[in-house]
Amino acid sequence: MGELYFSKVIELLNTGDSAALHGLFARLHEADIADILHELPPDKCLEAFRLLDEELASEVLPELNDDVRNNILEHIHEKRLAGILDEMDSDEATDIVSELDDERTRKVLASLDTINREDSDDIRQLLAYDEDVAGGLMQKEIISVQENMKRDEMIEYIRESHEEVENFHYIFVTDEQHKLKGILEVTKLLLAKQNKLAKDLMENDVISVPVNMDQEQVAHMFRKYDIYILPVVDENNVLLGRITVDDIIDVIDEEASEDAYKMVGLESEDRVFSKPLQSARRRTPWLIVNLFTAVFAASVVSLFEGTISRFVILAVFMPIVAGMGGNAGTQTLTVITRGIALGELTFYNTRKALFKELIVGIINGVVLGIIGCAVAYLWKGNMLIGLILGAAMVINMIIAGFFGALIPILMKTLKIDPALASGVIITTLTDVCGFASFLGLATLLL
Amino acid sequence: MGELYFSKVIELLNTGDSAALHGLFARLHEADIADILHELPPDKCLEAFRLLDEELASEVLPELNDDVRNNILEHIHEKRLAGILDEMDSDEATDIVSELDDERTRKVLASLDTINREDSDDIRQLLAYDEDVAGGLMQKEIISVQENMKRDEMIEYIRESHEEVENFHYIFVTDEQHKLKGILEVTKLLLAKQNKLAKDLMENDVISVPVNMDQEQVAHMFRKYDIYILPVVDENNVLLGRITVDDIIDVIDEEASEDAYKMVGLESEDRVFSKPLQSARRRTPWLIVNLFTAVFAASVVSLFEGTISRFVILAVFMPIVAGMGGNAGTQTLTVITRGIALGELTFYNTRKALFKELIVGIINGVVLGIIGCAVAYLWKGNMLIGLILGAAMVINMIIAGFFGALIPILMKTLKIDPALASGVIITTLTDVCGFASFLGLATLLL
Repeated sequence: MGELYFSKVIELLNTGDSAALHGLFARLHEADIADILHELPPDKCLEAFRLLDEELASEVLPELNDDVRNNILEHIHEKRLAGILDEMDSDEATDIVSELDDERTRKVLASLDTINREDSDDIRQLLAYDEDVAGGLMQKEIISVQENMKRDEMIEYIRESHEEVENFHYIFVTDEQHKLKGILEVTKLLLAKQNKLAKDLMENDVISVPVNMDQEQVAHMFRKYDIYILPVVDENNVLLGRITVDDIIDVIDEEASEDAYKMVGLESEDRVFSKPLQSARRRTPWLIVNLFTAVFAASVVSLFEGTISRFVILAVFMPIVAGMGGNAGTQTLTVITRGIALGELTFYNTRKALFKELIVGIINGVVLGIIGCAVAYLWKGNMLIGLILGAAMVINMIIAGFFGALIPILMKTLKIDPALASGVIITTLTDVCGFASFLGLATLLL
Repeated sequence: MGELYFSKVIELLNTGDSAALHGLFARLHEADIADILHELPPDKCLEAFRLLDEELASEVLPELNDDVRNNILEHIHEKRLAGILDEMDSDEATDIVSELDDERTRKVLASLDTINREDSDDIRQLLAYDEDVAGGLMQKEIISVQENMKRDEMIEYIRESHEEVENFHYIFVTDEQHKLKGILEVTKLLLAKQNKLAKDLMENDVISVPVNMDQEQVAHMFRKYDIYILPVVDENNVLLGRITVDDIIDVIDEEASEDAYKMVGLESEDRVFSKPLQSARRRTPWLIVNLFTAVFAASVVSLFEGTISRFVILAVFMPIVAGMGGNAGTQTLTVITRGIALGELTFYNTRKALFKELIVGIINGVVLGIIGCAVAYLWKGNMLIGLILGAAMVINMIIAGFFGALIPILMKTLKIDPALASGVIITTLTDVCGFASFLGLATLLL
């Protein structure tokens, strides 16, 4: 799709035929326009974005990646941005505004005040919530009715307000204090008799989330209950807004990236097209930590310098023991951290998981230890070195299995994110134990 | 939730009070019942599942994890299973049946034939599709109308058939050959005038997916277009079924697990509670591959045995060079593979990404090289060793940055899954280059 229209857009931008370009954009889906803008050089991208009317711009802007969006936000006039925000859902508008500095935020919201005071107030309210809790995901655009409203009144109410709310499908039912009482599918309303009341039609067992719930837990609610839309309430069960499943998909993507990132010490802002200097600076602290854990492991090797000086062959084999432990440990770690992320590991079954990984460590240790022993013997013709290598591998892979499971479980119990730093702890441990067991056995036996 | 009811369920199972247990389950959400079953010992779990009536059982079964579900499927009578499948959506029923062996499948479907022939035929059709394409995700339960149907006819039709279709919200509009023409929100129908036809009310720009599209691409369609429901069509645009967003969340979770798994050589069937022997067997091949790459790296060390025997200190420092390269390379690899998974890396911008990671590698190489040099000097008081260590780290981290980006990009171009094996290639490369550069420089300079 993008490739098809890309050269056409470039051509129209070069010939300055903005009428034709405007027409082309009007026929495309906003996500496809975003794809095209992603491919344009920064100045052409600004030029193309300027051609979009406020409504289309309001649909395209949330689809853009951080890089391109920030470039546009840097160059856009406050008045135009306010006009675009006016067309947006409150959750998306809030995400955009939160990218601006304080001075720009003030100006844009002041400009939006003159267009639509309600919109700017919604944004001010939503800005107060953390980005990664339910309040930071929710939108204020909802359709809610009082429990005593009649079917036809509800339909009339929907007719007046449905333009503002996309994808509603569900109507929230509240009492007079705006406390959430139930939820009503539009289909039920369509099929209902005229004199029915909201409270007769609604479902009472409504699942809602508190406004301060962490986004990972919110995502887990969607995952568990297979729902599309979730109402958000305050501590008194007063309805504040709703979260839609499309935003949850973004959360799930984000959390998966974060977990993958944390395992190797990356920050979530470090994306494919971040500036090189920024990326480098973000990765340096972690690499320095790694350097010191590596020095720690090296200091274990240093204890055995005497043995190595007599049997240089040990220097050849010692990285194998450490590396194999690291691989086995990281496998266990990945199984356990994904299990935790998907909510499979509960209070009751962690001991079972720990025990299982220990058994796997023993089996793999023995199998790989035997193969390692054979390889060493065939390569260097020294049976004793082979046996020492094999035994050290068995020890190290059992340690890898046990601690690869224990470390993330412990971190979860201590409420530390198990993805964070588990990787460096387990590889440091397997390096140290690998060097110590191999060189220690060698010192004893050779 | 689970913890609250867990002991209650155990108590009622022990006292054999099945009436009370039945009543308790009836008040709970199916996902919460599943959570409770996950915590029970296998025999108690079977006992509790037997108490669920067919409808509730049909809701609970798809929520269970593989382990518990397989235990139930092993022990369930074919007739009861057929009754449960009859209550299920066709996509979920097909997933259950695909877990059975051929003999059991035949028996269960024959039993379902006598209950509801249409259901068993739907399952037979869906079984023909691969699990990981659109056809493997779709359900046959849809509401579709002909384009010339009037508003009231549609409402009557929905009244008759909506019980079978959960969460429909959208009606698909087709022509007489069942070709997909448009899509119609239920809300629009609610607000429409009596004499309107389906084709007047529907949206023409309907996004659909071909039945053979890979599930990762299907997930990407949901992600990109922010939709809840996607119609599935054959090569002639004939409507076959629909995919709902709750199934896509499962796909996204699955693909994220798979990517995390492949990076460390795990198979997706290897879960927290797989049997130890199975897990061990699944991990062994990868560990053997790793053993041989480690031996390959060790053979590079072996080339320098002469140098090491004169300067044992080299054995102490060489794992640091290799390890730091591995860490930096895995960071780059993770950034690029996540970028590919989320569709951020396109044809046009890969060169930019490659260049960026090279720059990051140079910056981090220089910074960490200087620190490494300082550490070596302070620890061992040998400036030359420090300089050699620093220089080798610079070389190795530049290699890590460049190849950490190049390898997944190359694999993507060759249509190999970039998550697969990239990890072992990059760490082998950084081990080999780390040992070679450090020991090589030492041999030249000492």
